[in-house]
Amino acid sequence: MMQINFQERLDTLNNYLQKEEIDLALITTPSNVFYYTGFQCEPHERFLALVIDRRQNKTCLFVPALDRDMAVEQSYIQDIIGISDEQSPFDVLQENLTTDSASVGIEMKTMTVFQYKHLQDIFSKALFTDVGPQINRQRLVKSRAEIDYMVEAVEIIEKVMAEGIKKLKLGMTEAEFVAELEYLMRKFGADGPSFSTIALFGEKSALPHGSPGDRKLQNGDFVLIDMGVVKNGYCSDTTRTFIFGEASEKQKEIYQIVLEATNKGIEAVKAGVPLKTFDIASRDVIKSYGYDEYFNNRVGHGLGIDVHEEPSIHENNEDIAREGYVFTIEPGIYIPGFGGVRIEDEVYINEKGEVEVLTSFPKELKIIK
Amino acid sequence: MMQINFQERLDTLNNYLQKEEIDLALITTPSNVFYYTGFQCEPHERFLALVIDRRQNKTCLFVPALDRDMAVEQSYIQDIIGISDEQSPFDVLQENLTTDSASVGIEMKTMTVFQYKHLQDIFSKALFTDVGPQINRQRLVKSRAEIDYMVEAVEIIEKVMAEGIKKLKLGMTEAEFVAELEYLMRKFGADGPSFSTIALFGEKSALPHGSPGDRKLQNGDFVLIDMGVVKNGYCSDTTRTFIFGEASEKQKEIYQIVLEATNKGIEAVKAGVPLKTFDIASRDVIKSYGYDEYFNNRVGHGLGIDVHEEPSIHENNEDIAREGYVFTIEPGIYIPGFGGVRIEDEVYINEKGEVEVLTSFPKELKIIK
Repeated sequence: MMQINFQERLDTLNNYLQKEEIDLALITTPSNVFYYTGFQCEPHERFLALVIDRRQNKTCLFVPALDRDMAVEQSYIQDIIGISDEQSPFDVLQENLTTDSASVGIEMKTMTVFQYKHLQDIFSKALFTDVGPQINRQRLVKSRAEIDYMVEAVEIIEKVMAEGIKKLKLGMTEAEFVAELEYLMRKFGADGPSFSTIALFGEKSALPHGSPGDRKLQNGDFVLIDMGVVKNGYCSDTTRTFIFGEASEKQKEIYQIVLEATNKGIEAVKAGVPLKTFDIASRDVIKSYGYDEYFNNRVGHGLGIDVHEEPSIHENNEDIAREGYVFTIEPGIYIPGFGGVRIEDEVYINEKGEVEVLTSFPKELKIIK
Repeated sequence: MMQINFQERLDTLNNYLQKEEIDLALITTPSNVFYYTGFQCEPHERFLALVIDRRQNKTCLFVPALDRDMAVEQSYIQDIIGISDEQSPFDVLQENLTTDSASVGIEMKTMTVFQYKHLQDIFSKALFTDVGPQINRQRLVKSRAEIDYMVEAVEIIEKVMAEGIKKLKLGMTEAEFVAELEYLMRKFGADGPSFSTIALFGEKSALPHGSPGDRKLQNGDFVLIDMGVVKNGYCSDTTRTFIFGEASEKQKEIYQIVLEATNKGIEAVKAGVPLKTFDIASRDVIKSYGYDEYFNNRVGHGLGIDVHEEPSIHENNEDIAREGYVFTIEPGIYIPGFGGVRIEDEVYINEKGEVEVLTSFPKELKIIK
């Protein structure tokens, strides 16, 4: 597998900071810290930041003291400063950084108002700039090395799907089924689920973000499975909908419409056109059959280190699709009280600007007996 | 089981807003929205807010459109406004709320700078106040109904611990063991893990927040298990350390010191004294045996709806412990290259100001053969 080039990532960021005359950047979003350093950390309420202090020509990592050893092991940046629970992180920043910086970059979509106010005190002369959009633009374009990682996460979830549906039994609850699926994720080498696993039976499948519970599997139920794993810091996200036992004509009809919508969405994917194109291509299929009132969300979302990241594939997004983008295509029809179908693949716009479908699990209707 | 009284919770918040002359409060932290409404939602990058608009005498919930049905089902507040992916949440707020409010309450420790700047535009005449501390103070004091929920989550994790350790086998990896543990969580009725399950073998147990990986179980290994579940929105969090096969004298010595530290910490717990008391009582044991350099984190943290919430039990916390507080006592000794021991219980300061230990899993050294 190709290696991630952290220096290249940092160079790109540094060039941007230089161009924008930003003296100092504080990267505090855990997934962005991972992107630039390889250090995976969930600091909870503790403080985590990668700091580029250009005036000191210093790149360093502030981590919770109890995660310091892990940081040393994982991080490309080896100037690591541990902050213990008894210390104020803002005092530690003040001691280590150029406090009279004139321009400070932060991620405004994740930095909290609390942190911001403290930083305004420390960097009292600074204008604050949002470097989040630049980081998102950088992360948006995936390298082949990243695609390799993502494909590994996709392969695991497909094995889980294939083995998982063999475990379905009449009378089993959604929660029991999720237990089986998540066990298989670990068994097949996942670091964990990339989001809370969704398995919904029967009428519950009409809830696009429903929670698995005590609903028991019955004959004629839709079985909607939306799940993904994290592997080496990269996510997968796949949905398939099955029918258990006997399928009604209406179920089959809805399934075929959603399948067509997913396929049309995927076929539309290429570089150089607005992102909304893919949403509209998919949505129009559902509309043409008169089911549009049962499809109220966007067709897809980007993913990578986060299971939801840019780009957003919705019908008003005029941004142009570019090489390197990875996102989902996941239209659905959700009829309250009856049930829902969603079919979700992951796609990649490759170096030639063409679509590559990362998901390979079959999409034809499967009736599980 | 006792029912949660949402109206009482909202009344307490409303009284505070009235007293502080805050016209309008936007509660955007998912766990706080759950606390006041019963609606469990992970909005990811979408917008979620409980809004109390006192000048309109209106309490309403803004939710992602695709979660609207779930909100109707779960929320105590039934004035629910769905926001679709095509809408700007800030436009929707502007249409529905009193924009000339003079004082607006937000949670500064979780609200992002991005949202804050948009709200500053909408509520252009407002002074913004941090209502987070008041909400934390309210959540800090748990009712008996909440303790019932938490005990349920503790009971599940103890069953998982008891059954889980039976699955330990020579040569099994940490990751495989985590798969077994998380399977048992679901089997015993958990909604999911309350945090990323930690199971570390041998020298890896010296990493307080290490990740389970390919390390295989060997004879003489420490087996450190730190895990919890969410059940009905409330968390548990328990750590036990075992020894697999033969135990060395040094392992036994360290275990006994940590056990004494945990017990002394718990014995110190009562209402009316500074929270640091419990940290110091526990830490002093480790210090008295000369192992203080191997214990670098605080003794405990609060938990409830979040697995980490207030209070923080560290050696400089002068805040006074009060009735209703729930937190962990979890000292440890972590010797790099050798291994670590952590023993963690959850405690509750009851209505009489006395400690109740919620965890009942035995703490005596268990050598697993």
